[in-house]
Parts: sequence; C-alpha cells; structure tokens
Amino acid sequence: MKVIVIGGVAAGMSAASKLKRSMADVTVHVYEKSSDVSYGACGMPYYLSDVIEKDDSLIARTPEQFKERGIDVFTKHEVTGVDFNNKTVTVKNLTTEEHFNASYDKLLITSVASAIRLPVQGSDLLGIHVLSSLDDARALKDALAQKTVQTVSVIGAGYIGVEVAENLVEMGKNVQLIEMQDQVLPPYDSDMSAHVEKRLKDNGVDLHLNTTLKHYEGTHGVSKVVTDHGSFETDLVIEAIGVRPNTAFLKDSDLTMLKNGAIHVNNKQETSIPDVYSAGDCASVPHLLKDAPAYVPLGTHANKAGRVIAAQLSGEAAHFHGVVGSNVLKAFDLEVAKTGLSEKEAAHENYDYDVVNVKAANQAGYYPGATPIYMKIVFENKTCKLLGAQMVGKQGVSARINTMATAIQRGMTASEFSNLDLAYAPPFSPVWDPLQIATNQIKC
Amino acid sequence: MKVIVIGGVAAGMSAASKLKRSMADVTVHVYEKSSDVSYGACGMPYYLSDVIEKDDSLIARTPEQFKERGIDVFTKHEVTGVDFNNKTVTVKNLTTEEHFNASYDKLLITSVASAIRLPVQGSDLLGIHVLSSLDDARALKDALAQKTVQTVSVIGAGYIGVEVAENLVEMGKNVQLIEMQDQVLPPYDSDMSAHVEKRLKDNGVDLHLNTTLKHYEGTHGVSKVVTDHGSFETDLVIEAIGVRPNTAFLKDSDLTMLKNGAIHVNNKQETSIPDVYSAGDCASVPHLLKDAPAYVPLGTHANKAGRVIAAQLSGEAAHFHGVVGSNVLKAFDLEVAKTGLSEKEAAHENYDYDVVNVKAANQAGYYPGATPIYMKIVFENKTCKLLGAQMVGKQGVSARINTMATAIQRGMTASEFSNLDLAYAPPFSPVWDPLQIATNQIKC
Repeated sequence: MKVIVIGGVAAGMSAASKLKRSMADVTVHVYEKSSDVSYGACGMPYYLSDVIEKDDSLIARTPEQFKERGIDVFTKHEVTGVDFNNKTVTVKNLTTEEHFNASYDKLLITSVASAIRLPVQGSDLLGIHVLSSLDDARALKDALAQKTVQTVSVIGAGYIGVEVAENLVEMGKNVQLIEMQDQVLPPYDSDMSAHVEKRLKDNGVDLHLNTTLKHYEGTHGVSKVVTDHGSFETDLVIEAIGVRPNTAFLKDSDLTMLKNGAIHVNNKQETSIPDVYSAGDCASVPHLLKDAPAYVPLGTHANKAGRVIAAQLSGEAAHFHGVVGSNVLKAFDLEVAKTGLSEKEAAHENYDYDVVNVKAANQAGYYPGATPIYMKIVFENKTCKLLGAQMVGKQGVSARINTMATAIQRGMTASEFSNLDLAYAPPFSPVWDPLQIATNQIKC
Repeated sequence: MKVIVIGGVAAGMSAASKLKRSMADVTVHVYEKSSDVSYGACGMPYYLSDVIEKDDSLIARTPEQFKERGIDVFTKHEVTGVDFNNKTVTVKNLTTEEHFNASYDKLLITSVASAIRLPVQGSDLLGIHVLSSLDDARALKDALAQKTVQTVSVIGAGYIGVEVAENLVEMGKNVQLIEMQDQVLPPYDSDMSAHVEKRLKDNGVDLHLNTTLKHYEGTHGVSKVVTDHGSFETDLVIEAIGVRPNTAFLKDSDLTMLKNGAIHVNNKQETSIPDVYSAGDCASVPHLLKDAPAYVPLGTHANKAGRVIAAQLSGEAAHFHGVVGSNVLKAFDLEVAKTGLSEKEAAHENYDYDVVNVKAANQAGYYPGATPIYMKIVFENKTCKLLGAQMVGKQGVSARINTMATAIQRGMTASEFSNLDLAYAPPFSPVWDPLQIATNQIKC
C-alpha cells in the first residue's frame, strides 16, 4: 500500500508515524510545502521572545529522523492538485520548480492552515507579519531583533494575539493590540475576558477594542496602522486574526467542505471521496455540544485525528471522539481556560441554559499564598447538565479545567460533579474544590 | 423537629448548616467534646511550623457564629450514651461534670475519630503526642516551642506522619520517622512511595522502615524510643499511626459497625437504627471499586456526607455517590497524589489487572522549567477500564489527579481517556497530557 500525506505537521506526521509502526510494509511519502515537519507551533510566541531560544527546540523530529523510521519526507514540496479519479497528486518541487505526478492508494490531506491576511490597502508593505508556520516565526524573530523596531501593532486579540502581545512586552517593545470586537479572546464571554483585558493594560499593552483596521500606510515599510478609531504609528505589524484551511488547491474538487474551506470528515476521518482522509487544521471536527461540525484548529485534535487515520488504514477499530472546545492560555501571570460552551455559544446553539459566576480560592483559605479563581459555569436548565466552564486565576486553573472537561464529555450534571471524590490537601485546594464550590451553587 | 448532632467538625456542622438553611423551624443541638467546632484539621501539620501562624485561622466558624444561624453548639459536652428506644442521649458537661439527658427526633452521629495510641510500655510518659484534634495541635505546638526539644520521633509514615515530618524539618528539628512497613504512605505502591522516601532522606529525615516500636523509656518525660531495630534518643514523640472512630460510647448498642468501630451506613447515610444517621470519620463509605464498605476518614467525604443527611431530613432527593480513594499531599517540593486502586489494592480486590509506569514532562518539553511526572496507572485487563492512578512530581500533579478521578468514577477505559479533549498550552502541558501519554501505552 502506498500512502501519500499532504502536509507534515501534527496530524500528518502523527498518522504517518503510527501507520509505519502498525504496518511495516506500507510506503509513506509526505509532501510538505515549508522547510519543516513535526514542530510545536504552539510554542512559537515564546520563541519570539527567547523564552524558547532556538527554533530547533520546537522541532520534534527532522525529516532525516523520519527517514530512519521508513517515512519519506519531502520538504519544500507543494501539492498543487489532486486527480481523485486516477488517484494521483501533482507536486511542485519548490527548490527546482519542477512538477511531477505521484500515485497513491490512500491519500491523507493534512495540509494544515495559514494565517488569514487582511486584504486592505498597504497590505503588501514590508514589515507586516503573520505567525502560522515556523518559517513565519523565523522571519518575525529576525525582524523584531532590529533596534529600529520599538513599537509593534498586533491586529487581533485572540489566543495568538494575546500570547504574542505578552511576549512582545517581555522583549521591551511598545505593544498596540487592536481588536475589532468589544473584547479580547472572542470565544470567552466578555465578563471573563475582562480579567485578561485588565492584565494586558496593567502590563502596558495599549489595547484598542471595537477598532477595525482600515488600511496600512508607509513608503517602503509599514509605518502607520489606520483604523476606524484613529491612526497608530508603528514599526512593525503582526496580523493574528485567525487561520484558514490550506485547501485552495482542492477548490474545484468534489470534496465536501465547510464554508471556510475545512474538509468535512466523519468520525473515522473519512472525507466524501473514497480512500481520501483528512485531519488537523484543514479539517472539520465533530463538536459534542453543537449540531454542526466545527472548525477547531488545535494541535491536540490534530494529533488524535491523525492516529485515527492510521488506525483505520491498519484495520484497527478507532474513531475520533469529538471535541468540546477545551483550551488554556497563559496571559502574563494569569491562567485562562475554557471547556465546553460559553454563555454566548450556549445561546447560539439554542440551549435552555443558565449560568453561575463564582469566585473561590485555589487552595485552603488559611494556607499562605491562596489566590482567587474566577469561574463561570454554563448549565442546561431542567437537567442541570454541565455545558461549559470558563476559569481565570493565577494558579490552579490550567489543570483544573480538565476535570470539568472530562465531566462535560461524560454528560455529567452539576450534582454529579459536586459529588465527585476529588483529591484535597490544604496546599492545593479548599476542602471543596473550587469547581465544586461553583457546581454546589446550581440547584436542580 | 429536634435534631441532635454528636460531634461538630466537618460532617456534623455541614449537616447542621445545610439543614438549618433548608428548614428554618428545625431545632439543632450540637454536642462537641472538644473546645472547637468546624475547623480545618488537615491544616494542623502546617500550624505546627507556623506556615499557618494562628489556630483561629483554621477555624471556619465559631460556636457563636453558628448560634447566629440558629444552631445551638455546646462545646466541652461529651455524649456518653444513647438510648435508641427512647430516643435520648446522655450528655456530660465536661466543665461542670454534670450529666443530663436530651431527647431527639433525629440523631446524627458525627463523632469523628481519634488518633490510635500504641499500648506499649512507657506510653504514659510525658512528651508523647498525637495530632487529631485542634486541642492536640495546640498542645503539640507548645511542646515543640521548647528549646530543649531538638530531636523528634514520628511514629508512622502515613499522610500525617509525612506532612508532620516535613513541617518539623521546616522548624529545624532533627526528625526520626519510624515506620513498621517497608514503605512510607502505605496506600501507595512501593515503587511510587520510593520517590517520597528519597525526598524525606534528601531533606535530612532519619527514615527507619521495617521498624516496629517496642516501648518507650524515660524518667519523667520520654527520652528513648525502643524498636525491634535499635533505640533512638528523643526529646518528643508524635504518634501518627492512624485513627479510630469515636464510637466506643455505642459499643453495646445494636448499631451495625465495621470491625474498626466505624458505623455502617447506606448511601443515604442511614444507620441500622431508624432515625439515626452517621457520616464523617466515624462512619463507613461506599467504595466504587471495592465490594465491601470502606473506612476512608477524609474531610471531603465528611462534608459531602453531611449534606446528604441534611437533604434526607429536609425531604430532598440526595445520596452519597461513593468514593474512589482520591488523595493528594505535599511532601517537600513534591506533589504526591492517588485516585482509585493501587496495584496492591487491585490484587487484594481480585481484579484481573495490569499496570503501566510512565514518566512524562508536566509541560511542553521545549518550554523552560519542565519537570517530570512519574505515573502508575492500574487498569482492568480485557476491558481496559481504568482502576487507579498514582502520580508524583514537582508540578502539575495535584489538579491533574482529579481528571483521572473523574474518569475512574465514570467507568472510563484507557482509550476513552486518551481521546478526551483536554486543554493544552506549552506552559501547562505537553500536547498530549501526561495522563494521556500514560493511557496511550495501554493497548486494548
């Protein structure tokens, strides 16, 4: 069996590795457009500020290491088209500019996603960066190293925007963070994201909410960001407004896709075309709390979905279990985490829901160093089924969210959660875990 | 309705408080043998070393504060007998030494537990302490403050023994920790407790395993601990070998009890006698992974079980959901946690089980400051159902154990756990959570 993998980051290399472990005689060819495979993209904001000094720290395995495992990786090779009837792909060697065709028995489309660029006037000026590949990160790090770059404008205050802003502050840059919506971290409810907004401002970030980019100005390089609420002098711009699946090369095919171009897959990672699988940031995921398939481009899902493909191809029973939207990020000294639905998401999905907002200490109140955790729990009326949790605090948030994530994935009610036997000791928790203090407030 | 509560710590006061909130017209009388109600007993080891400076920091509410809520608390009042037929209790006022009878409609026995004393020769010498009530803690703290007390022998290396040893080291004492078994923390498997043994020794604790106390020597105060493996000079002794339910005053009654004197209750906290409920460190708990009712004297269970009694009395549907043996403790710079069954417990319960031992970093390997977590997962063969987890590490253990605790309580398999959508960011976790790295090793 010959397997072609388009794109060699999380899902693609996770699938290739597990497949090769399961089936020694399979031929696996991976075509990767960029210079790198198998790297930790989520670490890139910290690479900018030298919290992580070297780019190769982010690389889990090199093409050579995959070769030793019997996987042929071709970097700087872009797949430009697929003939699904004849089961061939057209590949462009980006170094030689030569094209060639390659045939497959099974095709894995794991072509990830790229940063969305804003199609405004001046967007071709020098000094406007994005951060979605390791090549992007290297270019951005080089640019930030220039002494003339003192003021940096970050467009978009989602996860990446906030993480990048923090790392720019660490580097001593002046940071302007510009967000179109009325809050940072749009997946969160605004009463929870307000904690992060305060922390950004406390750390000197010049935060502009409700502010839409109009265009860029500059002669050679960008020097001004023009918005609907004023203009900002700048030495460099980082656009962090989201990502779009790298599926443009498939746009004339019969593959079923979501509106944004994500490839629709079932829970076996099968696409709408036989022998073609997809996973990772270019594919949909089933969301356990939403009716429609979702687009949630995260490395955790990509790794799991990649393994599902390998299992399918090697005849193991396996399926993707779905997501609930769990995430966590560091925002200066805060841990910020969410699982399940926010209040606005619950409303959008037409749940009959209610919420509780609860503040509780991360450890026994009498134990020195206790800090508050702010929690918002969304639950279904009548059943008291837990639908979502958002948490913000200095300590004890990041791992705690996963207790709630597990409960939500198992369909637990507030009362069932309150009755869980959770571990307790004064340095780590009050006698009722903060999450149980919150669920105790829910009466059903 | 008149309710008498025997013992005013976690279960008793939790029941009384919730009952009074639910039913304004109920009369609640609490008789408490010691001077204090409603205190955080788990904080006492840290009170010894001034990590927690004042005893009143440990007191959640005073008798006066309960009085304001309509609950009559009588401290220094010991219940010496119960006439279940006539529904009366005999109470001794320990200040006046007077006895009186009081009648009840419903009786709550929440008389907690006391430290087991070793009945060896010399056990009546001065300077031999235990740590199960706040009065014990005050006396011990006073004794430790004496300059002559330099070398302290702790008998028993369970949770309390280890926590006390750490706090004695913090105080600059020479600590001898003497344990009869071949490991510290007997509920853990010895390959896991070995990490704690190393940390105790690294911090100067003179640890003696496989060592059984024979007797004490001394003239007025204790000055020598004599064991089957030598004698140890000492200035003070702390016995920490476990607790026994305070149910001796009921020993001639028809109440069904476990062998150790814990009152047997069903999942409504009902005893074998009508209108008599029990909860907390004097009662049994259902264990979700064991056939027989268990004795697990922890504040978390006491608080939950107390609320179940209050719910029963006020006509709400509620029951105790059972325990799985979740616990966590700090041992110097280590977090040590367990949920479900250890390997030896699984063997004892006749499970067809296997284990995986896995070491994984607490955060992305490339993010600075990553430290290892050592994990041992016990699972059922054939079904791959998760039965237990033990974890030791410097960071990320205490809250993570609760993700596994939730999974075990919901009967999840290793594969289901591996597929959970858990939150990930490089400062907090590898892309696969350490627990998922472990469950990924389990093949079913």
